[in-house]
Amino acid sequence: MTEIDPLSLARDLIRCPSVTPADAGALDVLERALSALGFTCTRLPFEDVDNLFASIGTGEPHLCFAGHTDVVPPGDEGDWSAPPFDAIVHDGMLWGRGASDMKGAIAAFAAAASRAIKTGAVKGTLSFLITGDEEGPALHGTKKALNWLREQNISLSHCIVGEPSNPDAMGDMVKVGRRGSINCWLTVTGKQGHVAYPHRAQNPVPALMRKLLFLSETPLDAGYERFQPSSLQVTDIHIGNPAHNVIPAKATARFNIRFNPTWTGASIQEWLKDKLDHLANETGLAYELDCVVSGEAFLTTDTNFLNLIADCVEDKTGRRPELSTSGGTSDARFIKDYAPVAEFGLVGATMHQTDEHVAVSDITTLTEIYEALITKYYERFPAA
Amino acid sequence: MTEIDPLSLARDLIRCPSVTPADAGALDVLERALSALGFTCTRLPFEDVDNLFASIGTGEPHLCFAGHTDVVPPGDEGDWSAPPFDAIVHDGMLWGRGASDMKGAIAAFAAAASRAIKTGAVKGTLSFLITGDEEGPALHGTKKALNWLREQNISLSHCIVGEPSNPDAMGDMVKVGRRGSINCWLTVTGKQGHVAYPHRAQNPVPALMRKLLFLSETPLDAGYERFQPSSLQVTDIHIGNPAHNVIPAKATARFNIRFNPTWTGASIQEWLKDKLDHLANETGLAYELDCVVSGEAFLTTDTNFLNLIADCVEDKTGRRPELSTSGGTSDARFIKDYAPVAEFGLVGATMHQTDEHVAVSDITTLTEIYEALITKYYERFPAA
Repeated sequence: MTEIDPLSLARDLIRCPSVTPADAGALDVLERALSALGFTCTRLPFEDVDNLFASIGTGEPHLCFAGHTDVVPPGDEGDWSAPPFDAIVHDGMLWGRGASDMKGAIAAFAAAASRAIKTGAVKGTLSFLITGDEEGPALHGTKKALNWLREQNISLSHCIVGEPSNPDAMGDMVKVGRRGSINCWLTVTGKQGHVAYPHRAQNPVPALMRKLLFLSETPLDAGYERFQPSSLQVTDIHIGNPAHNVIPAKATARFNIRFNPTWTGASIQEWLKDKLDHLANETGLAYELDCVVSGEAFLTTDTNFLNLIADCVEDKTGRRPELSTSGGTSDARFIKDYAPVAEFGLVGATMHQTDEHVAVSDITTLTEIYEALITKYYERFPAA
Repeated sequence: MTEIDPLSLARDLIRCPSVTPADAGALDVLERALSALGFTCTRLPFEDVDNLFASIGTGEPHLCFAGHTDVVPPGDEGDWSAPPFDAIVHDGMLWGRGASDMKGAIAAFAAAASRAIKTGAVKGTLSFLITGDEEGPALHGTKKALNWLREQNISLSHCIVGEPSNPDAMGDMVKVGRRGSINCWLTVTGKQGHVAYPHRAQNPVPALMRKLLFLSETPLDAGYERFQPSSLQVTDIHIGNPAHNVIPAKATARFNIRFNPTWTGASIQEWLKDKLDHLANETGLAYELDCVVSGEAFLTTDTNFLNLIADCVEDKTGRRPELSTSGGTSDARFIKDYAPVAEFGLVGATMHQTDEHVAVSDITTLTEIYEALITKYYERFPAA
């Protein structure tokens, strides 16, 4: 049986310009590599998105590696030092869109699996759950694939997500939870009028600003276990009034709250409505609030699993990783309802940026970490 | 010599769809009517705008009637009860765009002039200064025409502007000054970043909101003689950030200040910069302020002239008009540098609105007021 070379596979994956939600052959590349190792591969197309579930072995424990082959757009390709989908290796670095986020990690885990299978370390089930819709709306990817797994009575024991979890160097950080995220649209309606006659109009802008300042300056909490305090950020205000001499009729703001497990999406909406009702009584102007919860907060508390990951990372990098809950959402927000989940991958310093790149040596290190993780996993979590 | 019928002339003017800056024949209609009375007419085209100066008689005193034949757009003509340029008379009302603002007043003054000329009341110079660019940017209208007059060594003794000065009924109000107006663009620059990492970014929106609230809640003054307190209104905020998970790099607000003669455009900019510098030290974020002064505040103090107008209005309506400085800017802001100026015209209740209309009887009353004004003017202000 062949052993996978992680750098070659990473380059093959990057050469597929799979800008979300396009697949551009990326899942085919991965499926060919995994099939050659003996994995049973099932494609899971949902709407315009293709996904892949691949598994080898049977029974418990079931360790799943989750990831995505879609990438964010490269922007103006002329701004890149090398074409973003050429996967150039230069100066010990692999350059290209997806190198860090997260085709490099997928290749590393596939290579680690090839070695672990060769040594007979997989004593249970090992699987890949790879989506083509993580960087987009994430509606037709991991969420639906997990639902499909449940329908097939396939349960996961633990899951590792290959997101670039290290801010600066390999070994920095394992992500063990995420804050929840909610987007809110707040509209205040006043009364349009001429700026020369402000007493005949009701300007909604000061009322909106007072509400936003109050909400963004009122501490939501003081933090929660491994979590930073919840944070509200105003991301946009839209009035769209081209007339210089007109007081606008209404003004809308969009804000985002990243919240720790002190809150749920529902409880934070109650808090907002309570505060806004109170403020609305002061200003006398009507408001409207619309919220969309993108993910609930969660914290993985399976200490054995987290220690296993941290041990393997420390063993290969010489550094004990911080167990952190910082950062944006990932598909772990869906997986946490199915199995204990943690995230460890490459260095994310250049992810989503022009000239995204990772050190080739980091891919090597990550492959070794993943191989140790797979091997030790089946030792530490033997079938019941 | 013919006497002008004000209603007929008003209808002829309204039937020219002179949506600013288009003339659509309106000045031709007026020039024909005035030429027939013996006026010497000079067209003053500047760029894409046509203007008309028409005068009769010689020497001082020189009473000028100033106005505009351009109108604001009618909006969706389907929303009107009758087509906006048909000048329908119905229920004792004249309906159409410009009926109130201000073709009705031009027709009334032309009719009044025809009567005053007939009775030999014009003992000096009587003129019309009519622009086609009052409702637009006002760059190629009254301002340039006044400059042309100065170049011709034609000086004005007094000027009456035919803007619809009465809020609800004839006799309500003579405008004897205007607040100044300044538009300002305030940009605060922070540092873009991911909402999940607010400590790595600097959100400019709260800083902008704090500045705007401070400026709009700090009283500028307590009023000035006939003037209301100066007032600051935020008219727009533009961020233009489509990304839900991104803290924007900068945010821009536009606000307008209507200021009384406590201030000049220059002194109010100094005040703004002083306050903003102070606030910038607090937030540590850079700001940029751009201002455009659209007009300085002024107050006409020629009591004899104002009393003459008020006497004529009271004589014909039975009501002593309020001498007010309320409302938006008009071309009086340019004229005040050349001669004492006041504004009196029709009722403005429906100006700039769908179904703009005036009472036919108000046109009759205004013609009588203007005729008395012309006649008494040359008695009260005889040549030196």
